[in-house]
Amino acid sequence: MLYPASIQKLIELLSNWPSVGPKTAERYALFLLKQPQGYLSDLSKALEVVKQGLVICQHCRRITDQSPCSICTNNQRDPHLLCVVAETKDLLAIENTGRFKGLYHVLGGVINSVRHTAPSESGLKKLVERISSGQITEVVLALNPDIDGETTCLYLSRLLSKFPVRLTRLARGLPTGASLEYADENTLAHAFHNRKDYQSTWESF
Amino acid sequence: MLYPASIQKLIELLSNWPSVGPKTAERYALFLLKQPQGYLSDLSKALEVVKQGLVICQHCRRITDQSPCSICTNNQRDPHLLCVVAETKDLLAIENTGRFKGLYHVLGGVINSVRHTAPSESGLKKLVERISSGQITEVVLALNPDIDGETTCLYLSRLLSKFPVRLTRLARGLPTGASLEYADENTLAHAFHNRKDYQSTWESF
Repeated sequence: MLYPASIQKLIELLSNWPSVGPKTAERYALFLLKQPQGYLSDLSKALEVVKQGLVICQHCRRITDQSPCSICTNNQRDPHLLCVVAETKDLLAIENTGRFKGLYHVLGGVINSVRHTAPSESGLKKLVERISSGQITEVVLALNPDIDGETTCLYLSRLLSKFPVRLTRLARGLPTGASLEYADENTLAHAFHNRKDYQSTWESF
Repeated sequence: MLYPASIQKLIELLSNWPSVGPKTAERYALFLLKQPQGYLSDLSKALEVVKQGLVICQHCRRITDQSPCSICTNNQRDPHLLCVVAETKDLLAIENTGRFKGLYHVLGGVINSVRHTAPSESGLKKLVERISSGQITEVVLALNPDIDGETTCLYLSRLLSKFPVRLTRLARGLPTGASLEYADENTLAHAFHNRKDYQSTWESF
């Protein structure tokens, strides 16, 4: 390669990032090269300390800076409703809608037999513990509608079958802004199957 | 936002990167969070030192670690042929083909009247200087085939019109692996206009 060693090293380190190949890594490295040293130092420092002070919430198991976290200690939230997600980022996506008022539980992964991943054992143990406390009446399985998510839902439904809780799943259907023409058959079939009576107002959660 | 401050800071810094929005920055930050501290420290250090020891080659003006650079001092290369590129990365792309045996000149930018960019003044001055030395017989304008590239080519063709050199441009046509069906009209028109007699062997530069 023709790049000086310092750039080459940076390109190699950036090539590991998710969906970043050598070309994108090169682009990022050349972009960084054009930034003022102050920005590079800021970024360098941010990387060095990003893990410091982070904890896993003892209740919901999300990555946060205090345990129990601000959601688990918020007494405005419905303690009877529990939303199960795979990762902290899924929790944040739902939280950003501003429409879910219950509590969360982060599994820490989904079942994938090819990549040999699974929800963390402590995540599952804590989930059973929370549900067996008897306070929760509904568990919303908010996992991705893909093979891994489906497998994990099936596993969880069996794991939780002995508890008197209502198990629900996120609705399947057309996403906002979708075009019927390009929707896949599966999505369209779900959208038809779950069709609803027309009403012009939003329902609340 | 619901992220701890350290993650939030990292997301903000990553959002500046080319074609990286808040969602991708978030994804990168969460990926980084899962990496061992050793990787983060390596990356942190690589960012801190990436600019150290880099120089601009006094002849071709590319970013490198020695001046004059390894290309300019290579006496196997044809000193009569000069390839003009916008940025160091373009030089590397051409060099990676292994087929150009002349010398390079990096302009350090192209003309864009909206973003108010232009080749660096010293880049242009040095180009005129190199050409007026009389050793160069052909100048290949290897700029992107877009508005900025075309504008810059026009400017350069006027700037260099007083010198007795052959000015050439990279060929326009279908890229390897293209499908006629999806080629844009302009590309297809160029491909037709520049059609060549069929021959099955590669030509060398």
